[in-house]
Amino acid sequence: MTNQILYGGDYNPEQWDPEVWDEDDAAFGLAGITTVTLGVFAWAHLQPAEDRYDFSRLDAIVERATAQGRSIVLATPSGAMPPWLARAHPDACRVDFEGRRHVYGQRHNHCPSSTAFARLSVALAGRLAERYGDNSAVVAWHVGNEYGGACYCEECAAAFRVWLRERYTTLDRLNDAWNTTFWSHTFTDWEEVQPPTALSEHWRGPNHTAFQGITLDYRRFMSDALLGGFLAEKAAIRAHVPDTPVTTNLMGLYQPVDYHRWAEHLDVATWDNYPPEDPSPLRTAARMALAHGAMRGLRRGAPFWVMEQTPSTTASRDVNAVKRPGVLGLWTWQSVAHGADATLFFQLRQSRGACEKYHGAVLDHAGRTDTRVFREVAALGAQLAGLGDATLGARTPARVALLLDWDSWWAVEMSDGPNRNVRYLDVLTSYHRALWNQNVLVDVVPVTTDLDGYDVVVAPLLHLVKGDLAARLRSLVERGGSVLTTFLSGRVDEDDNAFLTDAPGPLRDLLGLRVEETDAQQPSVVNPVTLDGVAHEARHVFEVVVPDEATTVVATYGADFYAGTPAITRAQHGDGEAWYVATALDDAGVADVVRRVVDRHGLLGPHAGDEGVEVVDRVSPEGVRHRFVLHHGAHPVTLTSEVSGTDLLTGRAVAAGDPLTLRPNEVLVLS
Amino acid sequence: MTNQILYGGDYNPEQWDPEVWDEDDAAFGLAGITTVTLGVFAWAHLQPAEDRYDFSRLDAIVERATAQGRSIVLATPSGAMPPWLARAHPDACRVDFEGRRHVYGQRHNHCPSSTAFARLSVALAGRLAERYGDNSAVVAWHVGNEYGGACYCEECAAAFRVWLRERYTTLDRLNDAWNTTFWSHTFTDWEEVQPPTALSEHWRGPNHTAFQGITLDYRRFMSDALLGGFLAEKAAIRAHVPDTPVTTNLMGLYQPVDYHRWAEHLDVATWDNYPPEDPSPLRTAARMALAHGAMRGLRRGAPFWVMEQTPSTTASRDVNAVKRPGVLGLWTWQSVAHGADATLFFQLRQSRGACEKYHGAVLDHAGRTDTRVFREVAALGAQLAGLGDATLGARTPARVALLLDWDSWWAVEMSDGPNRNVRYLDVLTSYHRALWNQNVLVDVVPVTTDLDGYDVVVAPLLHLVKGDLAARLRSLVERGGSVLTTFLSGRVDEDDNAFLTDAPGPLRDLLGLRVEETDAQQPSVVNPVTLDGVAHEARHVFEVVVPDEATTVVATYGADFYAGTPAITRAQHGDGEAWYVATALDDAGVADVVRRVVDRHGLLGPHAGDEGVEVVDRVSPEGVRHRFVLHHGAHPVTLTSEVSGTDLLTGRAVAAGDPLTLRPNEVLVLS
Amino acid sequence: MTNQILYGGDYNPEQWDPEVWDEDDAAFGLAGITTVTLGVFAWAHLQPAEDRYDFSRLDAIVERATAQGRSIVLATPSGAMPPWLARAHPDACRVDFEGRRHVYGQRHNHCPSSTAFARLSVALAGRLAERYGDNSAVVAWHVGNEYGGACYCEECAAAFRVWLRERYTTLDRLNDAWNTTFWSHTFTDWEEVQPPTALSEHWRGPNHTAFQGITLDYRRFMSDALLGGFLAEKAAIRAHVPDTPVTTNLMGLYQPVDYHRWAEHLDVATWDNYPPEDPSPLRTAARMALAHGAMRGLRRGAPFWVMEQTPSTTASRDVNAVKRPGVLGLWTWQSVAHGADATLFFQLRQSRGACEKYHGAVLDHAGRTDTRVFREVAALGAQLAGLGDATLGARTPARVALLLDWDSWWAVEMSDGPNRNVRYLDVLTSYHRALWNQNVLVDVVPVTTDLDGYDVVVAPLLHLVKGDLAARLRSLVERGGSVLTTFLSGRVDEDDNAFLTDAPGPLRDLLGLRVEETDAQQPSVVNPVTLDGVAHEARHVFEVVVPDEATTVVATYGADFYAGTPAITRAQHGDGEAWYVATALDDAGVADVVRRVVDRHGLLGPHAGDEGVEVVDRVSPEGVRHRFVLHHGAHPVTLTSEVSGTDLLTGRAVAAGDPLTLRPNEVLVLS
Repeated sequence: MTNQILYGGDYNPEQWDPEVWDEDDAAFGLAGITTVTLGVFAWAHLQPAEDRYDFSRLDAIVERATAQGRSIVLATPSGAMPPWLARAHPDACRVDFEGRRHVYGQRHNHCPSSTAFARLSVALAGRLAERYGDNSAVVAWHVGNEYGGACYCEECAAAFRVWLRERYTTLDRLNDAWNTTFWSHTFTDWEEVQPPTALSEHWRGPNHTAFQGITLDYRRFMSDALLGGFLAEKAAIRAHVPDTPVTTNLMGLYQPVDYHRWAEHLDVATWDNYPPEDPSPLRTAARMALAHGAMRGLRRGAPFWVMEQTPSTTASRDVNAVKRPGVLGLWTWQSVAHGADATLFFQLRQSRGACEKYHGAVLDHAGRTDTRVFREVAALGAQLAGLGDATLGARTPARVALLLDWDSWWAVEMSDGPNRNVRYLDVLTSYHRALWNQNVLVDVVPVTTDLDGYDVVVAPLLHLVKGDLAARLRSLVERGGSVLTTFLSGRVDEDDNAFLTDAPGPLRDLLGLRVEETDAQQPSVVNPVTLDGVAHEARHVFEVVVPDEATTVVATYGADFYAGTPAITRAQHGDGEAWYVATALDDAGVADVVRRVVDRHGLLGPHAGDEGVEVVDRVSPEGVRHRFVLHHGAHPVTLTSEVSGTDLLTGRAVAAGDPLTLRPNEVLVLS
Repeated sequence: MTNQILYGGDYNPEQWDPEVWDEDDAAFGLAGITTVTLGVFAWAHLQPAEDRYDFSRLDAIVERATAQGRSIVLATPSGAMPPWLARAHPDACRVDFEGRRHVYGQRHNHCPSSTAFARLSVALAGRLAERYGDNSAVVAWHVGNEYGGACYCEECAAAFRVWLRERYTTLDRLNDAWNTTFWSHTFTDWEEVQPPTALSEHWRGPNHTAFQGITLDYRRFMSDALLGGFLAEKAAIRAHVPDTPVTTNLMGLYQPVDYHRWAEHLDVATWDNYPPEDPSPLRTAARMALAHGAMRGLRRGAPFWVMEQTPSTTASRDVNAVKRPGVLGLWTWQSVAHGADATLFFQLRQSRGACEKYHGAVLDHAGRTDTRVFREVAALGAQLAGLGDATLGARTPARVALLLDWDSWWAVEMSDGPNRNVRYLDVLTSYHRALWNQNVLVDVVPVTTDLDGYDVVVAPLLHLVKGDLAARLRSLVERGGSVLTTFLSGRVDEDDNAFLTDAPGPLRDLLGLRVEETDAQQPSVVNPVTLDGVAHEARHVFEVVVPDEATTVVATYGADFYAGTPAITRAQHGDGEAWYVATALDDAGVADVVRRVVDRHGLLGPHAGDEGVEVVDRVSPEGVRHRFVLHHGAHPVTLTSEVSGTDLLTGRAVAAGDPLTLRPNEVLVLS
Repeated sequence: MTNQILYGGDYNPEQWDPEVWDEDDAAFGLAGITTVTLGVFAWAHLQPAEDRYDFSRLDAIVERATAQGRSIVLATPSGAMPPWLARAHPDACRVDFEGRRHVYGQRHNHCPSSTAFARLSVALAGRLAERYGDNSAVVAWHVGNEYGGACYCEECAAAFRVWLRERYTTLDRLNDAWNTTFWSHTFTDWEEVQPPTALSEHWRGPNHTAFQGITLDYRRFMSDALLGGFLAEKAAIRAHVPDTPVTTNLMGLYQPVDYHRWAEHLDVATWDNYPPEDPSPLRTAARMALAHGAMRGLRRGAPFWVMEQTPSTTASRDVNAVKRPGVLGLWTWQSVAHGADATLFFQLRQSRGACEKYHGAVLDHAGRTDTRVFREVAALGAQLAGLGDATLGARTPARVALLLDWDSWWAVEMSDGPNRNVRYLDVLTSYHRALWNQNVLVDVVPVTTDLDGYDVVVAPLLHLVKGDLAARLRSLVERGGSVLTTFLSGRVDEDDNAFLTDAPGPLRDLLGLRVEETDAQQPSVVNPVTLDGVAHEARHVFEVVVPDEATTVVATYGADFYAGTPAITRAQHGDGEAWYVATALDDAGVADVVRRVVDRHGLLGPHAGDEGVEVVDRVSPEGVRHRFVLHHGAHPVTLTSEVSGTDLLTGRAVAAGDPLTLRPNEVLVLS
């Protein structure tokens, strides 16, 4: 086992004849593969019947990988149950949002409340831990796979009622939380509570609910129920494995599961990096940076792992482009820049059949090592080997926090009114992109995070305000910091009930204003908001704001009956500032506001004016600062280096003040 | 109780702590609120268990409102059942169009054939009537809420079969009505009949059916089944309340329920005015005028009530704009102009949680009375108080009837062929808008209406012709009147079977033509139809018409293989005229035709050339004519007054011939 | 019975009072109707109860038609079951893709695995054959109607398992075929196998499946199950009727049923010609030519029948245009040109009610014979009578084969990756249109066809390669022929598993290249591919091809990172050529490639440069060549005749070299 960034990925030799294994080994050697993820989806061959286990093939695979000096990420196979399980235990299959019991098929398909599934998955995890727990090649345990989705069966309904009893103790408190005097919903028996589905509270899908409180709680419950499955398996592993990290692969900015409820239970955060298709490479790069940040934010800045990425192409999209030459390296180094200590592929050898047969792999169907993709994989392997342990454990020295909150994400998108076109991620990514474009080092953190270490907090669409957050934001401002938040913030409490005060509720005094009206318009309607002579476009939501006397109006609406009223405000508290943006500004407008907020604290990053040039610093446990310079642009760019150092990838020395030309996709790690 | 237009709206103090009630009362006083609608959705607290009633809180609320001199519209709470009811009687929940039994959730969710639901809702209505029936503050009983939707359960199937037996007596007559020799559908036992759903006769939703006759009858049945629930509750109330009007709030132009089947059972017609979003304020105003007219047409021109409108914004739309300043007053006065004797809000205090928490209210979450919305509500309250009883009971002296027919609406939209892009309301509103734009006073009436009082009948898309309508239209023409109808009229009988004659069937001789072919084209295809040198655009359906010799061809098609053949015709019968428009003309074309038809009778209204200026007359029981002048345009306009009178809202005197300048949203009530 | 092309269509006198029958007879005489299709959908009146048959009305109808000298196509009524059947045997109704058991409604609604349905439908077919089998007026038996759709019930699941056992014998072979080591799907008991539905392997509909192998087999099974119903009825007929052809009406290019699995069981191929709506008349004409070809290809070039077409308009489309004047004749003659020996209408008299009441007919609701449509029908009848038996039994002397393969159609469209926008028919029709536009005589044949008679094989999207096809293509090239295939060919075997070699698998050596990468892009992305200086647009899929040294690069990509690499190649093998088009070219590009391939063999047709002029030859059993010249263009065109002959429709003599002017829709049959 070499001491370097883990490199490799999902490997399923059990799907192949052993004669292919030698070919694999040779190719992995050429590519610098250090790590294999084994056993994901192997349930059927590990346990061919409920009363029979068979570890012979996995024994051979593990032995072989161990002998070859490869690190192993060992998976429990609970991401996909075998056919016999579904037949013997139909209740292990899910009931969907439409109320339909599913039968055997696909994957990620088990009911999280199924006792049969729990018993069997935990037993198998225990057996695996018992058998392979003392193999020192195993560097991590990978429980299940991409937990997600939801079940609405009777077992889940019963478990939901138990969860509610724990949360609310009495029906009176539940009725109050859900505001059930509305529409005659007062519950008089716990058994009356139904999961919120297309057959109960919903219409037009998961975001249209008659009772937001019920739906919000069911999402929390389901997040916890899935977590329960993870924890049960983790406990079974821990019975045999005292120290090796246990984790599961998350999916970044995945709405259905609140990863902040999971974070403390993951020994290392890992995720699968498949950025959504976007015609703009820069938007895609920013989106990945945000997701890396969110994953790093799960465990207070500790490094994370990229558990999956594709070497070339996905198969599951409607249209699946190949990664352009150089992009694989660029994106991989970006993940390292943002905190990855492992970078793994799905997958090492391409599937022969079924729905992933066209998903790209290190080795294609013909097993070639003379393809462009293989060459790029191997070149990257060589770079990673060369880098060694320099960046392992390094952290990001950010002074800006971007708040990410699943509750607000859920609440604002399931709200009836004011505007269904407001999407949490659109607004969040817009503010993040403004920071990213200016190379501001930023942590993406939950609202419960200790804010003491930050100068600036950016909190777009902080719709639901819970706990002592308002007080902590206030405190940050009072010690001279800056807070920036937006329209539709401070509207509802933890139960999604409106604050019965002026909006924005508990943020009202901090922001120095009240929102009197909230207008909404179709996407085609634009209201100009001018900052320093530049007119930015505002859309979707236009709050009519009444500022306190002491509050500075930074910009006003240019049109409609609220023309001349505030669109952007700034309230001063001592040396601190609280900014409010009362409408959805376009990217340039957001960038302008963000720049003003951040600049006051001297936190704008280097090379902010050079489009496509991303600069990220990481500081090693020994205090060494590594500066990652990555060029996402389509054309060469020449910078003036702001620092002196040596590029760890090429050994090239760079002096501060020197011109520095970057080719598209080029990466430097200056140290 | 003051003798004025009722003003107030839905009020749910049971959802709030009593300490808020004082605050409410003070605010209602400021706003001139005279009326509160109580108890809608209050089932859960009125009957917390099947065997237990609790009127204590409603007693307090009613006592308080009574003591404050407010009128009460008292609701039965059957618009939303409580959770215990659904748990004890799962059959009270609906089975949807997809065949899925729903569980507890939302509202308007009960099966209209459920015996359990009927028993419980009627019992509660009776209890309420018994308890509050002699309270003279109660000015109306409000049964249920916005009846709508449909159920397809086994109980409904059984009730449908009973309904069919009553309608057809024998299976032979049913088979004939449904034309069941087609596709081997001959029914040999009543039990074979299934509700038409996605699991039986339908595909692609409610408008795609293999057997239009079955679907048409199920809609009639369901309309009657819902009405049955209303009637049962009404009877329970009448057992205790001899005179107070009993009604329910309708939804205007709501397709699923045939309000003409309900009309005779409503002691006063009431409806909830939430116009569909339309970027054009004038189209929106016309749409509301049409709906007001339809509601007034339910009871032979008697005044109706607006039971709900929002003071500011809805929440249920994808995008919910606030009403612009002045619009609330303008729209409210428009409702009065068209016959409203009450104008009520949903709601008086904004919901704290669940799906209507962002629906606007007289009092917002903070309970403020210094908001723009509250100020407009209060100003309107003062105007209404000032007007007093001047318009109560007044009627619209219209000589033009616009036919509205649910059967035709249903039949033409569920027809396979010729063109799914033809929508009944599109065509109806287009002809209505032409009348409205020219300030023609118009009644919107069912096809069964006595036409003796009219000079002109406009009947767009009179697809299904039933009863003696054809004869009555003929008689109107013969006495010198005018009839105007369109393409796709006169095609089917009451069972939706084609007339086995030349189209347009029973209207053929009146219109003096036969339709030989019916071409349909995509919306992008335009055929020009020229009237007096102006080319109008025709779309969607192009009938190839063979006129009788004596029939005048008013305009012809300009393109395609039927170029030069008639697009608009006029048949003379004595002094009367029967017009036919064989294609879907654009608005300008429709306006041109309508103008010609109406002008012959001298029925064009005043100020027809002033865009946005609506003029409507109402004549009081004492014979006083009130002229409402409303300005829906965006800019001031100056008219020359056609009448002399005093504006009842301001006391300003206006003399005929004087210039009269109207600001946007300005309203005059000249008397 | 006259010896001519059969002319007539579906006739349902049982839906009418007998007094209408005389009117029908007179009209049929005027129109030259020779043939009536009787009894489709007549089950309910033939068997009014499970234990009772009643042939009295059909007796009368058959007697009458026989007496009138008309030929009869006699149907079994299994296309629509009667209500009593569904009530007595609910299992005869289908379970749909969403897992829902349907109840009685619509048609084409029976479960093909239902034993009750099979018993009853076969019994009735036997009774009909027994009763009418010796009537010499019956020229064909028409079993059921437009077999299609699918069922997913438990009976089908059981039958599927039996089908699988027959196909695979062992579970090991099934697991290998379905690649079930992926996602832990290893089946250990046949009973574990579930039909692939929205509740098992599918999401987002029938083309999104986790296991392509399962879905592919279910489609084959369902195709066979439907065929089983046909075969059982056919056997019941054959027990009484030794010789009369037995068939059913197919639907042309209908994806759900693999007609190649049916072909050997049809005594004559027949189909219903309702071309999909397309604004381009030429595209529509080409589409019909392709479908005619596919139907002719079912039985090795034998003539087929057009069992249905509309005389004027459909009703089932969203927008239903009427056939323009002359189009009915043009399209009918096109069908004859491509091999039709019968041309029949749906229907002779227009339905009175239900969903086909606006479907056009020879006689409209008023029964008029003075309409444009009737006149055209009658004129066509006279032409057909005049032609007599000249073309009966004639065949198309094609030397070009276009491969049509349901397995590839299914596989390429249910594949995850590379691009969901690739549609089999889009590509197939594009290559066919190139041939059609150049009047190349082409057979549309299954991949199992003996290729010895062809010089050129065009095989677009030959995704799935099975049997000895690769060898037969190789052999054709080796004897000097040409093969043309495209991107995404040669990817998977019969089980939809990837070939574990370079793509395109078994075609790799023939084509002289390997595909290293497969890029996919959104439809808006265009890559130019230049041929002889003309830049064509390529879209959707861009394969990065590595050609063998000897392979000729015909054209290269103009953009992206693979600019300059091959987009079109040609490999020479002796005198033969194997062409490969690695991307989706636009029509002009496809036409250019096709022209090169075909021209080498001298197979370009006459008048290829005259847009809209279709020329097709048929050679009678006696060796007489009939040349059909049809003008689909909108304007008159003047050709120079390439042959001498007499137009059989008009008697006009045409000499080679003479100018020949064709009006729009004009047709000549030169002999």
